[in-house]
Amino acid sequence: MSNEQDLGITASKEHETGDWYAQVVQKAELADYAPMGGFIVTRPRGYALWEAIQDHLDGWFKDSGVQNAYFPMFIPESYLQAEKDIVEGFDPEVAWVTHGGYDELDERLAVRPTSESIITPYISQWVRSHRDLPLRVNQWCSVVRWEATETKPFFRTKEFLWQEGHTAHHDRSDAWDETMLRLDQYERLYTDVLALPPLRGQKPEHDKFPGADTTTTLEVLMPDGKSVQAATSHYLGTSFAEAFDITYLDENEDERTAHTTSWGLSWRALGAIIMTHSDDQGLVLPPTIAPKQVVIVPIWQQDTREEVLGYAEQIRSELAAAGIRVHLDDRDERNPGFKFNEWELKGVPVRFEIGPNEVEDEQVSVVHRPDGETAAEPRENVAETTREHLDTVYAKLYAAAEQHRDENVREAESREEILGTIGQHGGYVKTGWCGTEECEDEIKDQIAAEIVLVPGDEEPIHDSCGVCGESAETTAYFAKSY
Amino acid sequence: MSNEQDLGITASKEHETGDWYAQVVQKAELADYAPMGGFIVTRPRGYALWEAIQDHLDGWFKDSGVQNAYFPMFIPESYLQAEKDIVEGFDPEVAWVTHGGYDELDERLAVRPTSESIITPYISQWVRSHRDLPLRVNQWCSVVRWEATETKPFFRTKEFLWQEGHTAHHDRSDAWDETMLRLDQYERLYTDVLALPPLRGQKPEHDKFPGADTTTTLEVLMPDGKSVQAATSHYLGTSFAEAFDITYLDENEDERTAHTTSWGLSWRALGAIIMTHSDDQGLVLPPTIAPKQVVIVPIWQQDTREEVLGYAEQIRSELAAAGIRVHLDDRDERNPGFKFNEWELKGVPVRFEIGPNEVEDEQVSVVHRPDGETAAEPRENVAETTREHLDTVYAKLYAAAEQHRDENVREAESREEILGTIGQHGGYVKTGWCGTEECEDEIKDQIAAEIVLVPGDEEPIHDSCGVCGESAETTAYFAKSY
Repeated sequence: MSNEQDLGITASKEHETGDWYAQVVQKAELADYAPMGGFIVTRPRGYALWEAIQDHLDGWFKDSGVQNAYFPMFIPESYLQAEKDIVEGFDPEVAWVTHGGYDELDERLAVRPTSESIITPYISQWVRSHRDLPLRVNQWCSVVRWEATETKPFFRTKEFLWQEGHTAHHDRSDAWDETMLRLDQYERLYTDVLALPPLRGQKPEHDKFPGADTTTTLEVLMPDGKSVQAATSHYLGTSFAEAFDITYLDENEDERTAHTTSWGLSWRALGAIIMTHSDDQGLVLPPTIAPKQVVIVPIWQQDTREEVLGYAEQIRSELAAAGIRVHLDDRDERNPGFKFNEWELKGVPVRFEIGPNEVEDEQVSVVHRPDGETAAEPRENVAETTREHLDTVYAKLYAAAEQHRDENVREAESREEILGTIGQHGGYVKTGWCGTEECEDEIKDQIAAEIVLVPGDEEPIHDSCGVCGESAETTAYFAKSY
Repeated sequence: MSNEQDLGITASKEHETGDWYAQVVQKAELADYAPMGGFIVTRPRGYALWEAIQDHLDGWFKDSGVQNAYFPMFIPESYLQAEKDIVEGFDPEVAWVTHGGYDELDERLAVRPTSESIITPYISQWVRSHRDLPLRVNQWCSVVRWEATETKPFFRTKEFLWQEGHTAHHDRSDAWDETMLRLDQYERLYTDVLALPPLRGQKPEHDKFPGADTTTTLEVLMPDGKSVQAATSHYLGTSFAEAFDITYLDENEDERTAHTTSWGLSWRALGAIIMTHSDDQGLVLPPTIAPKQVVIVPIWQQDTREEVLGYAEQIRSELAAAGIRVHLDDRDERNPGFKFNEWELKGVPVRFEIGPNEVEDEQVSVVHRPDGETAAEPRENVAETTREHLDTVYAKLYAAAEQHRDENVREAESREEILGTIGQHGGYVKTGWCGTEECEDEIKDQIAAEIVLVPGDEEPIHDSCGVCGESAETTAYFAKSY
């Protein structure tokens, strides 16, 4: 438990975003830094958020034919090499295990950076007939990528938690449907659970997952104007299936090559939640994933203690019985003001204040996080009223995030306009694009903004490329990116 | 999907136990061997069993104050060294990460073999006041121990899945209660969920977890007469708290040292289930954890197909609505006999056979796995009847395992008797023991049997040590061990 002086956030979200974020993460007890740079310790309050995401996604996955599995955390160098051979540009920065006990290994083992190269050969073994398809496996695990960057909990860490799904299908159409289904599920997670409405599209050709036919993406805009790649789903075509020989006999006993997909979501989702919703008082969480949705703070004097606590406990038990995650903070050694601050810091979405007046009037005083809106509600049907308040708090968070996103998609028709608009406002700038990496590089070199997504099939918004002026192939969304 | 010729188990459980076990694991699609010796790929049917265990244990843990967290998979060498300094004899064979990307690391990182040395320093930071205690964290993860042994899926693998709980408490009494609570929960899992009644006790002094005051253990007897350590719970006293400085201010503001525990259960539990319950037809699972509890096999001719399938589907949907995990195998391309064999191999506890006779008589034919006992049951209240059958199948598995255990605990009063009894029968031999490692070594050197547990506080069954004849301190259970 923190000391009193540790409780407050001392940096401003608007002006010292990096420091503010680091303080929210640590003081709300979500994570601590590990002794090795690039690693973090995910504390129970942080891990509970990941479990909430798992609960939602895992249920949807299983309802749509996915089975969980577990593959080794190590991948022999020759297996990674096989992937490198088929997929130009795949050169992962990985952690290498070179010794087991006191002995040097004959072959180095990579700690998995992603598992295509170890999973695909097994899918190849398991698929014989068209009846074995579709085949869908997923694993929840951690992966390691040895990128030398400053540690930013949940956004930039060498080890991170994620899920990776890998599937094989009869043909392009089935595999494409799978790719879209998983993107739909990720979008549903962000929209209905995390209160973070994403943009949806594809990565440009040169920024696809190595070996993919199409890489689809969700992008979420952060308050500092940068975009986060919030989930990806790859249609891999037959490239992995050909390299690892995933073939099957169809109804006519003809041998055919399967089409595969992979798709993943990492704990960056936690970073996006924390960064977007929280404020200078600390963590703000959507009620959907908050470990405690309601905290009851009783306010008493010595002569009213018993009746106030009794009334508060009745309400706590009624909410709990209705399935609402509620905590009654009945600590004697802390005053109400301290408790208000502590639970604001820790991100409880709704606070009930209960004193002698509430007991007498058979009411509860309700306070929303983060905007402090208050209401006096009758004791009767308190569980139902509470649900409405939780829905209202969710709707507020969603509306704010949606407004921020919508206000920060701007059009530009020239290089100067692209540079100027992103330089001034951040956010997304959409423009016509000729499709060449050179035109992206020109923007990237100047302000480190890149094309974070292109819409799927729509006509380009402008006839000509905003950078070079040649004929536009598509619309491109430029943004600075995490 | 297997080809027909792959379906059958071709080794005998009784006579070729090792080969039989390997075939059950692979042919029931629980796991495959990884390309690196010592590693396995856990397939969906195997992983689902681990998820079932997680569901049970994780719920009990959370109901009793445990929170999940996630700590880094790597531990700096100096941290492991710190543990080695306090704990004589701790010399883990670990996998060493020496390079990140193209660079050699300044300090080697061990892939965690267990996490005391990285978790305890954080517990030390998080505990300040008596109000912060008890503090309980758990993580579900994989760990790596670089022991050079033959690979045996779920029993002997370099990487294995487990959970590790780590707690800190005010004093010895609280920490001891915690140690016992977790052992109780493990015992409940084995008894009520896995149909594997364990023996319960402690490890002898010289075989404790390094640094522990007391190591408690559950032991489960395998059909081949060897004992498996099925779970452990350690009361660590103040040794880790002193080494990592877990102190707190008590009610009087005096500084005190916490008492800690750790406890874990690994996927060996899966090995024990498979090994104990399965038979020469393949996998046998307790209905409690079977992914599918009932398979319905329809038996039709062309003219009865429609009515049989319609009736079968009604029953399937009625069972599913009642929460029973049921599968209707309506494949056209397989005959009933093939399906019987396949689902027996894959361990579905109850089979319904439904043909025109069952439709006409408004019945279902029920067949138990593994003993093939059959019953004709009325269509009415079929969900309730099914539950009774599932309970009966569980009770049969439990009774068989209990009988096997009880018949294989024998007494011995001399060295010759100990050696002869274990040599002839396997199983446990209990005898008086003077408490010295030398006496254990004498038995171990001759027949590789060791003391797998000592009861807690009971009086020794004999006055003198079965090995040396000196005065007995306690009873000891000798057995060969996995």
